[in-house]
Amino acid sequence: MSRETDDLAQVKDNAHSDLDEDLEDLALGEDYALNPEFVSDVVDALDRGDAERLRELLGALHPADVADLMGFLSADAREELIPHLDPETLAEILSELDTEIREEVLEHVPSATLAKAIGEMESDDAADVVDDLEADKRAQVLAAMPETERATIEATLAYEDETAGRLMQREVVAAPQFWTVGQAIDHFRREVDDLPELFFDVYVVDPSYKPVGAVPVSLLLRSKRDVPLAQIMEQVTEIPVDMDQEEVAYIFDKYHLISAPVVEPGGRLVGQITVDDIVGVIQEEGEEDILALAGVSDAGRDAGVWGTVRSRIPWLALNMITAAVSASVIGAFQGEIQKLVILAALNPIVASLGGNAATQTLAVAVRALASRELSAINALRTVGREMMVGLLNGAALALVTGLVIFVLFRDLRLSGVFGLALMINLFVASLAGAIVPLTLDRMGRDPAVSSSVFVTFVTDFTGFFAFLGLAALILL
Amino acid sequence: MSRETDDLAQVKDNAHSDLDEDLEDLALGEDYALNPEFVSDVVDALDRGDAERLRELLGALHPADVADLMGFLSADAREELIPHLDPETLAEILSELDTEIREEVLEHVPSATLAKAIGEMESDDAADVVDDLEADKRAQVLAAMPETERATIEATLAYEDETAGRLMQREVVAAPQFWTVGQAIDHFRREVDDLPELFFDVYVVDPSYKPVGAVPVSLLLRSKRDVPLAQIMEQVTEIPVDMDQEEVAYIFDKYHLISAPVVEPGGRLVGQITVDDIVGVIQEEGEEDILALAGVSDAGRDAGVWGTVRSRIPWLALNMITAAVSASVIGAFQGEIQKLVILAALNPIVASLGGNAATQTLAVAVRALASRELSAINALRTVGREMMVGLLNGAALALVTGLVIFVLFRDLRLSGVFGLALMINLFVASLAGAIVPLTLDRMGRDPAVSSSVFVTFVTDFTGFFAFLGLAALILL
Repeated sequence: MSRETDDLAQVKDNAHSDLDEDLEDLALGEDYALNPEFVSDVVDALDRGDAERLRELLGALHPADVADLMGFLSADAREELIPHLDPETLAEILSELDTEIREEVLEHVPSATLAKAIGEMESDDAADVVDDLEADKRAQVLAAMPETERATIEATLAYEDETAGRLMQREVVAAPQFWTVGQAIDHFRREVDDLPELFFDVYVVDPSYKPVGAVPVSLLLRSKRDVPLAQIMEQVTEIPVDMDQEEVAYIFDKYHLISAPVVEPGGRLVGQITVDDIVGVIQEEGEEDILALAGVSDAGRDAGVWGTVRSRIPWLALNMITAAVSASVIGAFQGEIQKLVILAALNPIVASLGGNAATQTLAVAVRALASRELSAINALRTVGREMMVGLLNGAALALVTGLVIFVLFRDLRLSGVFGLALMINLFVASLAGAIVPLTLDRMGRDPAVSSSVFVTFVTDFTGFFAFLGLAALILL
Repeated sequence: MSRETDDLAQVKDNAHSDLDEDLEDLALGEDYALNPEFVSDVVDALDRGDAERLRELLGALHPADVADLMGFLSADAREELIPHLDPETLAEILSELDTEIREEVLEHVPSATLAKAIGEMESDDAADVVDDLEADKRAQVLAAMPETERATIEATLAYEDETAGRLMQREVVAAPQFWTVGQAIDHFRREVDDLPELFFDVYVVDPSYKPVGAVPVSLLLRSKRDVPLAQIMEQVTEIPVDMDQEEVAYIFDKYHLISAPVVEPGGRLVGQITVDDIVGVIQEEGEEDILALAGVSDAGRDAGVWGTVRSRIPWLALNMITAAVSASVIGAFQGEIQKLVILAALNPIVASLGGNAATQTLAVAVRALASRELSAINALRTVGREMMVGLLNGAALALVTGLVIFVLFRDLRLSGVFGLALMINLFVASLAGAIVPLTLDRMGRDPAVSSSVFVTFVTDFTGFFAFLGLAALILL
């Protein structure tokens, strides 16, 4: 983290001439997104091979915007652009790129350049990039790096993906308990080169390097020089190095943390996580939930056509099977449909409304589980409330549709059967929409994944069975 | 913001006895969520009216956890709990509560207590709480507050909801351009009472109070005393006071900002937004997208049964209408179904798979639009790719289902019709799933809202029409 904030300043500082300022205005729209015209300019310059113009255009951009630009370019244009990026800029862009694009970009950068670029990153970003390299290239790049940097990266990669250990940066600012504010400030001024560029808390550690408290930098700044750190330090929330990143994000959000110390199993301070890394995690987790609910495995947004097909077809295939099973219910009532063919038309309405009601409940439950507002404590009450909601929604819709069907077909029994089936299905939909994610969560699985398919199956099956079954009993 | 981090420390500092530490362990699980046993203890103490025990139990909790606890209690239990909260704790809890619960809690707190509690909050939190009060009570509470505090809150409330003006806190740390590091630090030490408890950047302002740069506190700390602020300051990203909070969140995420100055139309510094407020916004916006895609208007998670019904029935009603229109397609083919009743069973499979494929595309497009990875720049390419994906998924599924249907019914023409209809519908699904959100976005509307209903309608309609139409042409 942290580095980027400085970069922004650097980029803008470089932009002193009027020409550059005009370019900046051209680059980003009012909404801080890249202008299509600017992207066309880049593509034109690439096509002409105009290195001078490219350097000018890219110079007007923050690394985060260059990363965005890469996302908007075709794979070929990206490949052409890479040689025009100086190694420093490349280092900055690499931590901003989405994984799929990054993997592709990394293939086109020579190992020596990469080793240098990675050396300039903070430990968490560096490890991420190295992790994306293919085995051969990874070995080459690591071999080209200084011993200590390599060791740090390898240590970070030893932690599991999506844990605090992978998220943390190893650069921390620590001070012994017995220091005063003045001693700490003097030390920092002397040892400027050893400090991270930006930090928010000084962790106060005991002799075994366990964090015993934290002093926010602003508190340090406004305290008198002779005050001992131990006197002003605040209690810290320690993050175990193997904690899942979703858990870490929950704690940061809940307690409004800006940074938190990461500790090894023995309690020793090994790094810190800062809130700006958490912002990324929260975005990611929210995105994962939306995509999982919609039945998309693994984001795969930047993947090519084949990657996208692979990310979507598993759930479609599963849905095909459940849809076939539900359809077999209709098959079982073929005789009834032949006698009263209107059943075939009304049938899908019952199933569709059930599916929609279930999706509503499901989305609410999945979000509530993610933010821990739904747990064993209020599960029963929530399910109860959902059942009530299902009954009420069902009754309201049954009333309206029943009336419409009566007006259209002048058949009181048909409209009764339809209304009743609708009520049954909306009740079951609400129940399933709440119970399925709760059960998955209780089993320790992600409630967003696979809930949709299962719940849709339940409402299709119930919808067809309730409507055709009641029709067979009452109408025929 | 900021205050909470201190509270955490205070709460934990108070917890010096062993008894209290045991209680803390009992309160929160490994995952930092409240333990059901602890919640039961609170409910028991409430039932017994055991004020002593309640104080003990609540004392072990961070205000954020007390807020969570309130969410887990029934409305009656919540009401009983309120008198047991001291005014200071109440102030802290109020900014943590979800809107619906907060509105309910506010009804049960006397105006004088509220005025005092609100006075202790930062301007953004205070304004939020006052905004939730009913007109009568709001007037009473404001009347009971000191003139300046009232003026600040009224000024904040004058900004539109969900804008930077509402999100910002008015407490900022600013310094004139000509100061040195030493002058700034000395000033802060002298004027400690005027400083926010926590801050991350010192904004450097010109004589007309326009921000010209920012000095991160950690940079201030490690710079030599005689360095002028103007020399070390970094360029800032100014946030216009009327910017939408989603936009603000995008900028914070993109540039990894920790805090940013908020400026009036003339450019004058009026407040700052800090990243921990943004974490809340990102959570909120992600949640809004999930719920909107699922057809839930306005969160309404903590609403009662009636509120929940109201939040869900509009989309169900709309879905009922579109389902009826789609069903009319089936109605138009009654004659064909009567002749070949298996059509009625296979029909919903085509529609269901189309609906699922469209939902996948839709979710990916909505997220890409939200993170600005999809825009006018790559819209055409994205739609083209989705069409390819739809064709390929359609072809793969058509092959499998066609084969199964041939094995089951020994009818090559039936399996051909089914496969062709499936391919058509998956192609249309991918197209609609990409074009509908893009069009809504281009029209300046939220692409997550109403896309689902529209897209499902398209795939139901197309599915029924393609399958039954082809069947009528080819099979009968």
